[in-house]
Amino acid sequence: MAGSPGIRLTAADLSADSLARARARVAAHAPGAQVTWHHGDLHRLPFADGAFDHVFVCFVLEHLADPVAALAALRRVLRPGGTVTVIEGDHGSALFHPESADARAAVDHLVRLQAAAGGDALIGRRLHPLLTEAGFRDVTVRPRTVSADGSRPALVEGFTRRTFVAMVESVRSDALAAGLATPEAFDRGVAGLRRTAEEGGTFHYTFFKALAVNP
Amino acid sequence: MAGSPGIRLTAADLSADSLARARARVAAHAPGAQVTWHHGDLHRLPFADGAFDHVFVCFVLEHLADPVAALAALRRVLRPGGTVTVIEGDHGSALFHPESADARAAVDHLVRLQAAAGGDALIGRRLHPLLTEAGFRDVTVRPRTVSADGSRPALVEGFTRRTFVAMVESVRSDALAAGLATPEAFDRGVAGLRRTAEEGGTFHYTFFKALAVNP
Repeated sequence: MAGSPGIRLTAADLSADSLARARARVAAHAPGAQVTWHHGDLHRLPFADGAFDHVFVCFVLEHLADPVAALAALRRVLRPGGTVTVIEGDHGSALFHPESADARAAVDHLVRLQAAAGGDALIGRRLHPLLTEAGFRDVTVRPRTVSADGSRPALVEGFTRRTFVAMVESVRSDALAAGLATPEAFDRGVAGLRRTAEEGGTFHYTFFKALAVNP
Repeated sequence: MAGSPGIRLTAADLSADSLARARARVAAHAPGAQVTWHHGDLHRLPFADGAFDHVFVCFVLEHLADPVAALAALRRVLRPGGTVTVIEGDHGSALFHPESADARAAVDHLVRLQAAAGGDALIGRRLHPLLTEAGFRDVTVRPRTVSADGSRPALVEGFTRRTFVAMVESVRSDALAAGLATPEAFDRGVAGLRRTAEEGGTFHYTFFKALAVNP
């Protein structure tokens, strides 16, 4: 917000808890910010057509059964010529050394569980066709790859261990309940991923950032 | 070379044919360039220790059985404080839409054939540990992702079709001879990859560019 003085923001979330945490964070770090908080579903936003100049969604579409419908609903509240930024990951981009079948299986568990929940953990590669289908124009998608290796210990800790491995560990009981792996196999997968954060290991992951225009 | 006036280059290649083509290209496009041409093996370069300020290798290590030995041989001819640039791809980074088992299998054929030939088509992710093991320091590796979609028709043509799909097609007879696929299955794989270059398709591939210092 430092770069956009006078900006008026509207934040929407389906989760009251997430919204409360966001409010607390803004109160702490940007007490003067003009933010309107909306608790609700992005498919049914109570705002007029064309009410906004820009819409920003990050790690949202990956959880939705019909991302094109969601993008169309967001486009409705954008003014003509308004723009949207969409950021998503793609678990298929996870590239690591040492490679191992166990670690690869652990990544696949994430993909399967997200699909079973109606989402798509491989959505990053699809942003261009999704935005195009939703009626946006001048769609550009740029990759942003995180490369964590011995030259970047903070990134190894912050991304490989505390973000990606932690995410895999968080679905352990779901993966076991879904019959995707035995406890032993699941734990070997986590160990294989952890190994990529040790000396001589590398871990790479690509996020996709799309920008598009409402015609 | 335009940015490095007075630079003296030495080009080495195991293939006399490749060297001849490089000479012709330099004669056509940079007739004043000072280039020494060396036909030989990079593991046994006939140059003094520390003879060079910089070494550049691109798409070379992927073909070698012992990339650390090759890097060590290149390091020998670098002066203390001299630098090396290494660029390699990684077929595991190939990410596309629509995803299909046939197209994925086609990529895997490339990986298996290169492994059978003593190389490693998944080497990009390993550049940091390889350079470190070869005795280089201050190793930094940065990804360079090519993202080809409907917004970049020239890239779809030049990279997806004419580079990647063409590369897969070029190993058809080898893949069939190695028993990796039936002709029908191989051709379905090529068709699946070609589909990613059609409307609504996307194709992404990550190259890794490393810079390191000879201590």
